[in-house]
Amino acid sequence: MRNVKAVVEYDGTDYFGFQRQSRRRTIQGELESALTLVMKEPVRVVGASRTDTGAHARGQVISFKTTCGIPIERMCVALNSALPPNIVLADAEEVGPDFHARYSALLRTYEYLILNAERPSAMFGRFTWHVPGKLNLAAMRRAATHLVGTHDFSAFSTSRRDGKSAVRSLTALDIRKRSDVVTFVLTANGFLHGMVRGIVGTLVEVGQGRRKPDDVKTILDSKDRSAAGKTAPARGLCLIKVAY
Amino acid sequence: MRNVKAVVEYDGTDYFGFQRQSRRRTIQGELESALTLVMKEPVRVVGASRTDTGAHARGQVISFKTTCGIPIERMCVALNSALPPNIVLADAEEVGPDFHARYSALLRTYEYLILNAERPSAMFGRFTWHVPGKLNLAAMRRAATHLVGTHDFSAFSTSRRDGKSAVRSLTALDIRKRSDVVTFVLTANGFLHGMVRGIVGTLVEVGQGRRKPDDVKTILDSKDRSAAGKTAPARGLCLIKVAY
Repeated sequence: MRNVKAVVEYDGTDYFGFQRQSRRRTIQGELESALTLVMKEPVRVVGASRTDTGAHARGQVISFKTTCGIPIERMCVALNSALPPNIVLADAEEVGPDFHARYSALLRTYEYLILNAERPSAMFGRFTWHVPGKLNLAAMRRAATHLVGTHDFSAFSTSRRDGKSAVRSLTALDIRKRSDVVTFVLTANGFLHGMVRGIVGTLVEVGQGRRKPDDVKTILDSKDRSAAGKTAPARGLCLIKVAY
Repeated sequence: MRNVKAVVEYDGTDYFGFQRQSRRRTIQGELESALTLVMKEPVRVVGASRTDTGAHARGQVISFKTTCGIPIERMCVALNSALPPNIVLADAEEVGPDFHARYSALLRTYEYLILNAERPSAMFGRFTWHVPGKLNLAAMRRAATHLVGTHDFSAFSTSRRDGKSAVRSLTALDIRKRSDVVTFVLTANGFLHGMVRGIVGTLVEVGQGRRKPDDVKTILDSKDRSAAGKTAPARGLCLIKVAY
């Protein structure tokens, strides 16, 4: 049995997220259909992160096991011809039997893009959240310093934890602006469901002057989702890297 | 009666081109529906160029007449809230009664994007033509010099002219490469149907070494569509500017 690790890029606009569902188009579902077709045997896929409905990836990592003898260097071309054009396998390599795309992952990096302009964009609306009006980047960066580190992020999670730990280590939260685009880059050992979008939504309210930078510390300590800002839409979200 | 000129941006992937059709979604159809809704009277739209099914625009220009008194500075916001997110009105101004988006246009500029990389892109597949393999840019540029100027472009048109002139003045055809993206920028007083895509398809065959740069002169002189290369797909095409 070969164990394969591959990097996957997708435009998630037209999918109900990564995770397989019985009657809806998902990234995992499309990958498994294409792999099963090409490998001529049922293939199950493990993904590093279960990205949300409408969220994208440039660096999702998957792993799967197969007995198929197709040379590794031909795997991407074969798979990409079987996949829809908005899902692309960008790299494949053979790994040891213990590698698991999800459990072996050490760090995940997400990017969130805001189009900070008066007018929306017809072209890039599917990859950005349109926020008109001035954003105070210095205030947003000051607020972000409260979030970096190891914390219980319950206040930024949209799903109930049911006793499971909500403690995560956010190792970086950078905010950059170039032309009309504000980019958030977040790296952590793991993210709770809705965590990136909850953080971005809250930081935008800080950038708009509707909350103070230090309010973010209070929100974090409250562990209460209703204390935080609204959840930013999925279309601005992209999984860009998984480190092992 | 007010006469309004506006710039329109759209992602044309999900539309059957600009021109209104009875039972299909088109850009003109969506614009007229939104305008009729906002202006509270039937509005007919004139577009500078009838872009193809799947082609895009950053600088399409439209004109329309209305008796509606909505202030010009509020028109874009009102229209954009009535339009689907992949069509955006980017500018509106009041013009004299003789202005006509199509007949008053002097020059049109189209951009064509090729992703020249081994792997396709999941994100930008809708805005680029994926051409793997090395392209000889010097040969393509040499071939392009035969096309610049005033010529009968019948060999690059996909529709029959039925006695109408196929003479157009191509004032510029620039080819640039930055990272993996090759950009063609073409400016002319007008383009025949399929002309940009016919030119790009032919130049790509030159870039791949399947035709010689000077073959393009022979193709042009033949006035025969079957002499030219294959038509490049619409998804790489974008109308970027109309000059008046």
